[in-house]
Amino acid sequence: MALEEIEGDPHSTQLQPPYLKVYTGPTPNGFKITTLLKLLNVEFQRREMDMGKGEHKQPWYLKIHPDGRVPAISDVDVDGNRTVLFESAIILEYLADKYDTERKYSYDKSSPLYWKQMEWLVYGSANNDPVQGAAFFHILVLKTDPPGGKDAYVQQTNRILKVYNDRLVENNGWFVGDHLNIADIGIIAFLKVSVESLGIKLDAFPAVADWMKRVTDISGVGESISGA
Amino acid sequence: MALEEIEGDPHSTQLQPPYLKVYTGPTPNGFKITTLLKLLNVEFQRREMDMGKGEHKQPWYLKIHPDGRVPAISDVDVDGNRTVLFESAIILEYLADKYDTERKYSYDKSSPLYWKQMEWLVYGSANNDPVQGAAFFHILVLKTDPPGGKDAYVQQTNRILKVYNDRLVENNGWFVGDHLNIADIGIIAFLKVSVESLGIKLDAFPAVADWMKRVTDISGVGESISGA
Repeated sequence: MALEEIEGDPHSTQLQPPYLKVYTGPTPNGFKITTLLKLLNVEFQRREMDMGKGEHKQPWYLKIHPDGRVPAISDVDVDGNRTVLFESAIILEYLADKYDTERKYSYDKSSPLYWKQMEWLVYGSANNDPVQGAAFFHILVLKTDPPGGKDAYVQQTNRILKVYNDRLVENNGWFVGDHLNIADIGIIAFLKVSVESLGIKLDAFPAVADWMKRVTDISGVGESISGA
Repeated sequence: MALEEIEGDPHSTQLQPPYLKVYTGPTPNGFKITTLLKLLNVEFQRREMDMGKGEHKQPWYLKIHPDGRVPAISDVDVDGNRTVLFESAIILEYLADKYDTERKYSYDKSSPLYWKQMEWLVYGSANNDPVQGAAFFHILVLKTDPPGGKDAYVQQTNRILKVYNDRLVENNGWFVGDHLNIADIGIIAFLKVSVESLGIKLDAFPAVADWMKRVTDISGVGESISGA
């Protein structure tokens, strides 16, 4: 079977195994994935989905991401074995497991820090990101208030920012361990949205402000987490 | 240091290592954890938090779960080494990794199914559960509409139920692999809420209805996922 048939993408360029294709768009969840891959210097094909034209809801793409969202990855090894994954936290876990063999930006499952890394990463995905995702879509894309009103979103965000700030104080400036890892990459993408769409001020959360500056100052992270 | 000092719980019974303590309450996220532990026949101390009295917001508990929610676990080995974790999807991953050594209800990280298991588990936590959590809290607890109105929640739930139904059809009745695993346990807890708080009918999603019946018919699961 030809590779483009496996991939299903009608606008695919010809790909020969091994390859890593990232289906993405201008969204924080997508930036998480490309940021990690750039930090690791992993070669990948970035497939920008035309979401304005509803490309992410086409039948061929729903076979890759059944909820028609970005990001998703298709990772094909030299023998043509293909791993297709969606859900940004688990894509980060997978990419770190496979490509961060030196554990520069992640912790190995044999380490107790692995569980803290996954806990904080998924806490963001399950708590902060849905709030910021709705705020982003309604305020910045549709130019309207999110359902239930902006105040409810500001209130929830401030609650979570206090949790983040306390953690950073308790753990000397990092969510997990003592250096940048996938928990930071997962958390920071949507925190930028809180500031931009909800107008959240970080003055009351100095440890978060300090961490955000330190992380975005790391070469490549600031631009990458903003989609560059 | 005495164990009750480590745990911090003012109403703790004396515990000697090794022990597993589950801080929980009458919520679907808590039911996920106790369901898996009962299926695995793992001994644990169930610590019911008095949320009506705000016990989950007390300083001692915030050291265990910094956002003051349930569930959380404190798992202490025979040497007194303690793993404290919150976030239900990662608690399930941790408990499966440590206690499901026969891989009865989970897939090992060396298996390609591991990634699909984590993808569907976290997809539920990041997409369906926040919707159902808000619906549950507002409709069943506060007896009011959720912010933005009930219809928006019904609409989102129906979108996700279609994703679930298509997946179950594609994968012969299971989300991942061919038997009950932590993805099912994670997903079913809040699907019950959709039915109860939003009045969602499953007639349009026959594969979900069939899966839900099959899963709750498994000895111990139906009662356990309802909090018994």
